[in-house]
Amino acid sequence: MKSIKEIAMEHFPSDKKARCGGAHEICLFCAKCRADEEDEIYKPEAGIASVIDATVLKADASAADVEKLCEMANEFKTASVCINSYFIPLIKQLLDPDVKSCTVINFPLGAGLPEAVANEADAALNAGVDEVDMVQNLAAIKSGNWDDALKTIQETAKLCLTKDALLKVILETCYLDKEELILSCLISKKAGAKYVKTSTGFGTAGAKAEDIALMREVVGPKFGVKASGGIRNPEAAKEMLDSGASRIGASSVSALL
Amino acid sequence: MKSIKEIAMEHFPSDKKARCGGAHEICLFCAKCRADEEDEIYKPEAGIASVIDATVLKADASAADVEKLCEMANEFKTASVCINSYFIPLIKQLLDPDVKSCTVINFPLGAGLPEAVANEADAALNAGVDEVDMVQNLAAIKSGNWDDALKTIQETAKLCLTKDALLKVILETCYLDKEELILSCLISKKAGAKYVKTSTGFGTAGAKAEDIALMREVVGPKFGVKASGGIRNPEAAKEMLDSGASRIGASSVSALL
Repeated sequence: MKSIKEIAMEHFPSDKKARCGGAHEICLFCAKCRADEEDEIYKPEAGIASVIDATVLKADASAADVEKLCEMANEFKTASVCINSYFIPLIKQLLDPDVKSCTVINFPLGAGLPEAVANEADAALNAGVDEVDMVQNLAAIKSGNWDDALKTIQETAKLCLTKDALLKVILETCYLDKEELILSCLISKKAGAKYVKTSTGFGTAGAKAEDIALMREVVGPKFGVKASGGIRNPEAAKEMLDSGASRIGASSVSALL
Repeated sequence: MKSIKEIAMEHFPSDKKARCGGAHEICLFCAKCRADEEDEIYKPEAGIASVIDATVLKADASAADVEKLCEMANEFKTASVCINSYFIPLIKQLLDPDVKSCTVINFPLGAGLPEAVANEADAALNAGVDEVDMVQNLAAIKSGNWDDALKTIQETAKLCLTKDALLKVILETCYLDKEELILSCLISKKAGAKYVKTSTGFGTAGAKAEDIALMREVVGPKFGVKASGGIRNPEAAKEMLDSGASRIGASSVSALL
């Protein structure tokens, strides 16, 4: 198995040393350098609610379901509420200013045309969303087209950087081998995202502690790592945070607190 | 339970009688009138392959999977090949001219912003796809916002009509009660689509003969009805065609022939 640095060198050869601390060691010349930003790691004193993305993404969710979620998010001061983009205008009305609005794009299959994904992001950003969780281009990755996979993230990252929106890239770890997982972290970082995230919740498996640990190792402390999919109790959430997660996506918010 | 005509009158009151034969009876003033078009019903002499949309939509599908599907589609002369939009450029290269290219949008959750869905459709149409299978706005329907549900289809239908692309609206019947199913057929027709389709294959259930029969009754003979989700043998396909389907979506193409 190649080392993380070897994988980085193979795809993004560089003589410059990274200042941001990822195990890739070499500078990836990211669209936005994060080296001088604050660490994006969990601070236990802030409490677990502060890192939860309260989430409802099922196909038959109603405005009433979303309203209930927003009430809970406002009460416990979660990091964000994450919903399908139809509900962006609704949550923008309901959320307190310190709870961010978050949506998903290219979701959950990760197989959109790069242009289609960027177009979808553009509409969501124009609706005023603060955070975008995009599924990376799994179709390209499964076809060996890493250039397309990078480009798909880059086009959305560019839009998010312009609007000062936070971009998380959902890797859908259940479909990736170890090398694909490492390389997915590298392209997400290089493209200008701010987070990598494990799962959609619609794949064959959710977040695993070992994946979180590897993702954190690759990206270093300046980047975010979100665990999502199947986290339904405080023990599971704690395991993810202990492994390096700085956000938790969960639909069972009250069960986690 | 209200009649189909009563549901139509409640939402689209009209004194004009429909010429197209749907059980709504009244004219819906559709974006495109289909009354003078040929019937869109299955002709047994054409053979079952002629109505199959050969489909691969799973998240981890590769270019190799799509290539295999295209070979089979060319050999048996299926109606189309239906893939996620990342693969549109690939299938445009591989398919014989008499096999159409088809993609999905707002898929599979049916919860995108109307603008995001239209943007996504625009990118797919610009990539040259012949047919678009869009999931209707389930989020709006489950929230009682039928105006938004209609508008979501209208925006994509407008783009498809401009490009002479065939629009199928996936109703995702597993989440609809009977009245919602009827009204979903009516808004699809009114908006300018050409087909209603049962399922994404990612919901809690797939195509059911009774739903197909009701959909056919509502829309009449000038509109298409596509059965999809869980159709894996010739008997299931025949049951759908006997109930009124004019297209079959299937990933197990060879098992159906």
